[in-house]
Amino acid sequence: MKLIDTLNWRYAAKRMTGEKVPAEKINAILEAVRLSPSSIGLQPYNVIVIENPDIKNQLLPAAFNQPQITEASHLLIFAAWENVTEKEVNEFVNHVADTRNVNVESLAGLKTSLQKIPGRPQEVNFNWAARQAYIALGIAIAAAAEEKVDATPMEGFNPETVDEILQLKEKGLKSLSILALGYRDTSTDWLAGLKKVRWNKEKLFINYN
Amino acid sequence: MKLIDTLNWRYAAKRMTGEKVPAEKINAILEAVRLSPSSIGLQPYNVIVIENPDIKNQLLPAAFNQPQITEASHLLIFAAWENVTEKEVNEFVNHVADTRNVNVESLAGLKTSLQKIPGRPQEVNFNWAARQAYIALGIAIAAAAEEKVDATPMEGFNPETVDEILQLKEKGLKSLSILALGYRDTSTDWLAGLKKVRWNKEKLFINYN
Repeated sequence: MKLIDTLNWRYAAKRMTGEKVPAEKINAILEAVRLSPSSIGLQPYNVIVIENPDIKNQLLPAAFNQPQITEASHLLIFAAWENVTEKEVNEFVNHVADTRNVNVESLAGLKTSLQKIPGRPQEVNFNWAARQAYIALGIAIAAAAEEKVDATPMEGFNPETVDEILQLKEKGLKSLSILALGYRDTSTDWLAGLKKVRWNKEKLFINYN
Repeated sequence: MKLIDTLNWRYAAKRMTGEKVPAEKINAILEAVRLSPSSIGLQPYNVIVIENPDIKNQLLPAAFNQPQITEASHLLIFAAWENVTEKEVNEFVNHVADTRNVNVESLAGLKTSLQKIPGRPQEVNFNWAARQAYIALGIAIAAAAEEKVDATPMEGFNPETVDEILQLKEKGLKSLSILALGYRDTSTDWLAGLKKVRWNKEKLFINYN
């Protein structure tokens, strides 16, 4: 099935059945996230993977009791690095050197691209990191649709409370979006069967031919 | 071919051959962009589609003369709405009503979700809009890989100059990222054949089982 067809099949299910998504499907979605590109390749974010029902229950009120939080099989929480400092930049340069089996000294061009980042205001770095995380969020949504797994991206939650429950501040992270993974419950979901709303192409695209 | 395989196949080509990408492949990538989800479904961005070589030449210095700008077949410029005001919110509510053939009055719940947006600071709305655009950017990258079209996401350009050349300010838009679409030139691209660098899963994912 082509990506366009799976994107037409998918929607943001508001009610899910609670059925478990098999590990191999979760792993395929996570591997797509891991392969997602990002600016300079830094991937300045983490993804929290939650299967534990107790933690889902704790998160429920922070997400205004939206039922897909506990009816989902897994929750992926996309969390951006609060800042990008020398420490992360150096870790990344070392990782590139290790992966490609080259000396750090040979990566001068990469270091030049990276050196401006730690000097930028924290807020600039956080917003930049958040955008990179959303590339991975988009790819996760495409990957889930390919696996015929419902994926509901959610910003409707209190990020400070979620960060507190998951102790993200201690990890230098701030939550951005929850992707609830599971299976739609068409018998209870008011959104199931409603026509997908998207801007038409004349509104969305501006052509310079 | 599975998405994971196409993501492993892809990389951010720095040199392209100049060969044209067929219209049906471009249209498939654009349709995937159009189907991308976004917060509340608002899609607060536009995508500028550039095929014209004169415009690519004008953009080249603004992108620090990176050759894929002119060697690409098409450039997609993801540009977020500078702000989201009552006007855009009302247009969206009308569009939902039209698409689903219901009265605007029946969309009270949707209106409640939307009403806080115009009151937020412009910067908050822009950063939020930019994230939504990056979901579509991620999905465009997945769609291009499926079509075996190389796609190079680029933030390395001067957005103010690009906005000026494309007269985006007049349209209430700010450029975020350029996605160069074309075909890799492995004979000249220093990056072709280099091992892909990504964090390993132990670093990227945090499991709460």
